[in-house]
Amino acid sequence: MTESSLRGVFAPVLTPMQADLSPDVPKWIAFCKQLLANGCTGLAPFGTTSEANSFGLDERMEMLDQLVAEGVPAAALMPGVGTCAIPDTVKLSAQAAKLGCGGVLMLPPFYYKGVSDDGIFAAIAEVIERVGDERLRVYLYHIPPIAQVGFSLKNIERLIKAYPQSVVGMKDSSGDWNNLRGVLTSFPGFGTFTGSERFLLQTLRLGGAGTISAMANVIPDRIRQLYEHYQDGNAESLQADLDRYRETTRDYAAIPALKQVMADRTGDEGWLNIRPPLTRLAVEQVEDLRARWRAAVQQGAAVSPAADD
Amino acid sequence: MTESSLRGVFAPVLTPMQADLSPDVPKWIAFCKQLLANGCTGLAPFGTTSEANSFGLDERMEMLDQLVAEGVPAAALMPGVGTCAIPDTVKLSAQAAKLGCGGVLMLPPFYYKGVSDDGIFAAIAEVIERVGDERLRVYLYHIPPIAQVGFSLKNIERLIKAYPQSVVGMKDSSGDWNNLRGVLTSFPGFGTFTGSERFLLQTLRLGGAGTISAMANVIPDRIRQLYEHYQDGNAESLQADLDRYRETTRDYAAIPALKQVMADRTGDEGWLNIRPPLTRLAVEQVEDLRARWRAAVQQGAAVSPAADD
Repeated sequence: MTESSLRGVFAPVLTPMQADLSPDVPKWIAFCKQLLANGCTGLAPFGTTSEANSFGLDERMEMLDQLVAEGVPAAALMPGVGTCAIPDTVKLSAQAAKLGCGGVLMLPPFYYKGVSDDGIFAAIAEVIERVGDERLRVYLYHIPPIAQVGFSLKNIERLIKAYPQSVVGMKDSSGDWNNLRGVLTSFPGFGTFTGSERFLLQTLRLGGAGTISAMANVIPDRIRQLYEHYQDGNAESLQADLDRYRETTRDYAAIPALKQVMADRTGDEGWLNIRPPLTRLAVEQVEDLRARWRAAVQQGAAVSPAADD
Repeated sequence: MTESSLRGVFAPVLTPMQADLSPDVPKWIAFCKQLLANGCTGLAPFGTTSEANSFGLDERMEMLDQLVAEGVPAAALMPGVGTCAIPDTVKLSAQAAKLGCGGVLMLPPFYYKGVSDDGIFAAIAEVIERVGDERLRVYLYHIPPIAQVGFSLKNIERLIKAYPQSVVGMKDSSGDWNNLRGVLTSFPGFGTFTGSERFLLQTLRLGGAGTISAMANVIPDRIRQLYEHYQDGNAESLQADLDRYRETTRDYAAIPALKQVMADRTGDEGWLNIRPPLTRLAVEQVEDLRARWRAAVQQGAAVSPAADD
């Protein structure tokens, strides 16, 4: 098994948009650079939090080209590439490999439900074979609460065995610690990321690679701190600090909530633009979220005074 | 509300493929013509049964162009156009409207789950506004067992009110007669199709437009017979005849089962090609399906001797 070159704290980067819902590419690139400067070790653009699947193939490919052209190091990128259709996933994956991306984050095809492990294996295998690029590094994206279709332990094992050069890691967004623990203990050396920073300390203690977390869009420095200091005596309190921030958005859809935090932080209402079927938070939700966020920041200041709150 | 120009029996056309999983376009076009000759009043290519979402945007657009260029009347077509991304759905819908298709079958964006009615309304509205073609005729595609995201009665009403020229009908594949009955009784004059021919008689009795049914790929003549004679005294027995055929595939995934029936009927094993994540039936399933199908054909011959079994 090829070792994962990607480790640490990755943001599934929020996608800022113009009022007409086209991507605000300059703002997006500036935000990507800021995240890398402020704590992220890498970026997973075109993740679920990025609204990737609300974007067309052309839009995604042009954006990734521009991101790399503007100097964001491809080696630190793990763009999302999973779609319902093998040819589309092949196009996105081939582009990423060619650009030198450190990896790609690959959803299984997610339109049909109740499909077999054999079918999911065949889909991923078909993509890897068609891309046919030894630079390709696949991170399997397991997010059954949204995709409904995911990767069983047996299927992960089969994929690693069949493609030891290519299948190097996974993002587990099951929200289920037992599943994540199963992956971590079954496949030591596999590049396993938790999809939620609330399992970060546990993940790192079991040898995991890090986290790809929506919250890394807004508190990258704090998550990085735990990543760097997870073996220190105060690791539990660093985890508790992260958990407090997560609580602020617990009752709301994560994507509009995080876009609201960005709008409040920057004073730029453009951050609120979001593609249907997602919608902005309602006014009363915004007030509640702001109050919760202020409280988390106040408490967080006692743990470590971060510039970014 | 504009009246639906489409009525009757529509097949969500199975997509024959080469061994390399590319679409076998000549075979597909011949099959489309055969379906129209053998009982279908129209076709819904790129439906769920067509594996549409396993195909890339380019593939779908090229195929539809060719289908119309080869003389299949666009007015009888209701191609599937719903994807996760508004720009993609706009492209497919604009092409269909420009070609003169009688309608388009539109899934709501289906990646994110648990989205609001407001979000789904906004997504469909955005597509209609962007297409900006008064020839566009939208049939809402409600298939919660697969898409997980669907159209509530309230949202259907809101869409009809907002876009009375454009939103003219619906395919209800909920599998829930109570839901379908709700649509039929709430919106008289709306072009409501049942997604399963097992509700065809009930649908027609309540003024529905017909059926868009996977089974119309293999028994279009029999379904047409019920459509034409639903007010006759023997309508119940015609419905029972259809139900018997449906029973043959009940325990199997419908798409590989129907491709198996086509392979057996034509002696062309190419019909078995299927895109992952879907898989062919297992050998023992094939034997069982064949036995069931033979039995249905034997019983069906007593109802009406159809050339197509």
